[in-house]
Amino acid sequence: MIRFDAADSLLTPGWQDRLAPQLAAAHEELLTGTGAGADAIGWLRQPEIIDPRQLNHIQAAARKIRDDSDTLIVIGIGGSSLGARTALSFLQTPHYILHNHPRILFAGDTLDPAALSELLELAAEGDFSVNVVSKSGTTLEPAAVFRLFRTLLEKKYGPDGAAKRIYATTDPERGKLRAMAAEFGWDTFSVPPDIGGRYSVLTPVGLLPMAAAGADVAAVLSGAQAEMHKLLEDRSMDNPAWGYAGARNALRLDGKTVELLVSTAEAFRPMVEWWKQLFGESEGKDGRGLFPAGASFPADLHSLGQYIQDGPRLLFETVVRFDRQKSILTLPDIAGDGLDHLAGRDLGDVTERVMEGVRLAHTEGGVPNLLLRVPALDEASFGALVYFFFLSCALSGYVLGVDPFHQPGVEAYKKKVAEQLRQP
Amino acid sequence: MIRFDAADSLLTPGWQDRLAPQLAAAHEELLTGTGAGADAIGWLRQPEIIDPRQLNHIQAAARKIRDDSDTLIVIGIGGSSLGARTALSFLQTPHYILHNHPRILFAGDTLDPAALSELLELAAEGDFSVNVVSKSGTTLEPAAVFRLFRTLLEKKYGPDGAAKRIYATTDPERGKLRAMAAEFGWDTFSVPPDIGGRYSVLTPVGLLPMAAAGADVAAVLSGAQAEMHKLLEDRSMDNPAWGYAGARNALRLDGKTVELLVSTAEAFRPMVEWWKQLFGESEGKDGRGLFPAGASFPADLHSLGQYIQDGPRLLFETVVRFDRQKSILTLPDIAGDGLDHLAGRDLGDVTERVMEGVRLAHTEGGVPNLLLRVPALDEASFGALVYFFFLSCALSGYVLGVDPFHQPGVEAYKKKVAEQLRQP
Repeated sequence: MIRFDAADSLLTPGWQDRLAPQLAAAHEELLTGTGAGADAIGWLRQPEIIDPRQLNHIQAAARKIRDDSDTLIVIGIGGSSLGARTALSFLQTPHYILHNHPRILFAGDTLDPAALSELLELAAEGDFSVNVVSKSGTTLEPAAVFRLFRTLLEKKYGPDGAAKRIYATTDPERGKLRAMAAEFGWDTFSVPPDIGGRYSVLTPVGLLPMAAAGADVAAVLSGAQAEMHKLLEDRSMDNPAWGYAGARNALRLDGKTVELLVSTAEAFRPMVEWWKQLFGESEGKDGRGLFPAGASFPADLHSLGQYIQDGPRLLFETVVRFDRQKSILTLPDIAGDGLDHLAGRDLGDVTERVMEGVRLAHTEGGVPNLLLRVPALDEASFGALVYFFFLSCALSGYVLGVDPFHQPGVEAYKKKVAEQLRQP
Repeated sequence: MIRFDAADSLLTPGWQDRLAPQLAAAHEELLTGTGAGADAIGWLRQPEIIDPRQLNHIQAAARKIRDDSDTLIVIGIGGSSLGARTALSFLQTPHYILHNHPRILFAGDTLDPAALSELLELAAEGDFSVNVVSKSGTTLEPAAVFRLFRTLLEKKYGPDGAAKRIYATTDPERGKLRAMAAEFGWDTFSVPPDIGGRYSVLTPVGLLPMAAAGADVAAVLSGAQAEMHKLLEDRSMDNPAWGYAGARNALRLDGKTVELLVSTAEAFRPMVEWWKQLFGESEGKDGRGLFPAGASFPADLHSLGQYIQDGPRLLFETVVRFDRQKSILTLPDIAGDGLDHLAGRDLGDVTERVMEGVRLAHTEGGVPNLLLRVPALDEASFGALVYFFFLSCALSGYVLGVDPFHQPGVEAYKKKVAEQLRQP
């Protein structure tokens, strides 16, 4: 489903031949589990091994939440939050928060008292439930935020009523959250221990909030599964994941240090944040890795556009385009603003022309352009795109020479923070 | 009001002495209008020369909008949008869109049909008004979007009713938007011709949406004015704008290519986007300039944190801290999650400890940290911080050796797009 095009990569011909052997080796290491971090590649086959009973369980919980809650508070940080945010935006409209029911709000990645006070007020406005997502249950931010919302639930519904409104997504056996859930009788969902946070959106971590929002999670998994079969079977540079992983490494070897992920679809904006975590946390180690940044066009053409066009030649763009749009909207015929030649044209079509102009301007300015084509902003494409990025990231990390599945640098800061917090 | 601290810049001692002469020259060029782009430094004295009658006009229009509109649609792109978005978030809570009246929605920086269809539906739900912000009136995106909302207004209120709900912020004399406003009798506000989009938030471009949201715009201007006097009078490295502009140039000369603007305040998030435009568009030219990126902590510690800690040593952080918080929130006493030592502590205080741990981890990892301290998330601090960034950016651009007030690279892409759109 996902197509890759490097025609505007500005790379010297032959880069594919140079990278192909490394990609073949990386592909083999992944399939055989012989590469770095192989204890955390459960995501590789996840789309086809999810238990149908688990899917039924997710859908039943989602129905209950939709029946008895005006608001669902999803508590998580990093991979326990970004995937669900991304899915909700991808499958809905940018302002869905203003009209969807239940309203799904994210907490757990900030300790800002003003932001949390507001979220507590919004939750208390009607009936609400909480989905707490944490493998351990002891990560500072989500654990602290869960205390706040659990207290509010108990105040509003009593201890027994609260217990029926808490959904814990956590390790199948270990950790404090699993223990608390068992003690208090909360409904629980398991994250496979061999899948890290940033590779977890196709597990209950992402699927439960998606289902609660009314998305067809079976279609998401089915799209991911189809993409998985296609990508795992093709051991050639025609494989779009090989193409993308190879081109970004070839550009890095050419001296590029920043990758800018670009789209014109408003619904794609949160996916840029998800992608930044996926690639930044997988590759940013041992002094290596591309700096992941994002932009939304045309908005950021009037912001980062000047830098892209004329700044240092250290970045390349990866542009995500969608073949089919959710709706069409034509420009009304009103004179006076100099746009008369566009009257009656669909704005999606105008955007295509804008992006073609941008491509020409940027490549003439020496900015390499990689292109990803995605069929639509729907469940199947979401599943396919997520899997495409998973595999591309894993291959790219192996070509870079790092373990793309662990994050030792995150532990470094956590240790310093824990020391600070032990002080009175 | 704004304080700057470079104690953790990791720069070799003596950098201040090396940069001071260039900052003194830049400061002098600005004050005497002898530097590059001096036809566009109207922002330099803007906080004190705004006409009180214009302020009254803004406040009267804001009262009318608050009386007769459930929604205000602000149509603009780049500097005609980012400033107002930033102010609204800075002065309110992150989810203000869910409970503020009137609801202020931004359009004009996307042509995405799904996003625009939703905005049109949201506007039509109740009574609405439109503030169209464009110096020329012919910039593609806002002009196209204005056509859509003007058509909706005329359908709902008739041509005369619609004319009473359109507020045009534009050039005082020239341009198609000014001409249309005169023809149809729309209320108009002027943007001084010597102030560019990214320096315009203290003009009606930012002030009208702020006032419509109920903010005290006089306090914003007063905060900016106080900061202006302080910064323009101090010709020394004690001037925080000299310090920030100097340190970021010293770090650039040391080989850093990416600046990451960081805060823990959720309300600050949109200001990162505004700051990216201000610095990226001002400095990203002639093959020079730092790549402006942003992060929100602790959220992004679980995303970009790994790259920051262990990736290539090409970035530095500029951390924005607020002395006073809007509210306090203490952690409830519930056992089971390993956070018992934090029970009863304010989350703002916990965040201070987190940031101290992060500072230690990142500087030990070789990431320079610059620190900006801001009194509060209120009107006076917003005005002061905006002016601080204006002046720092202008000084920094002059030290870099570019014209920080024009954007030739944006014209390059506009030209290509115009060619594309003339094709059938």
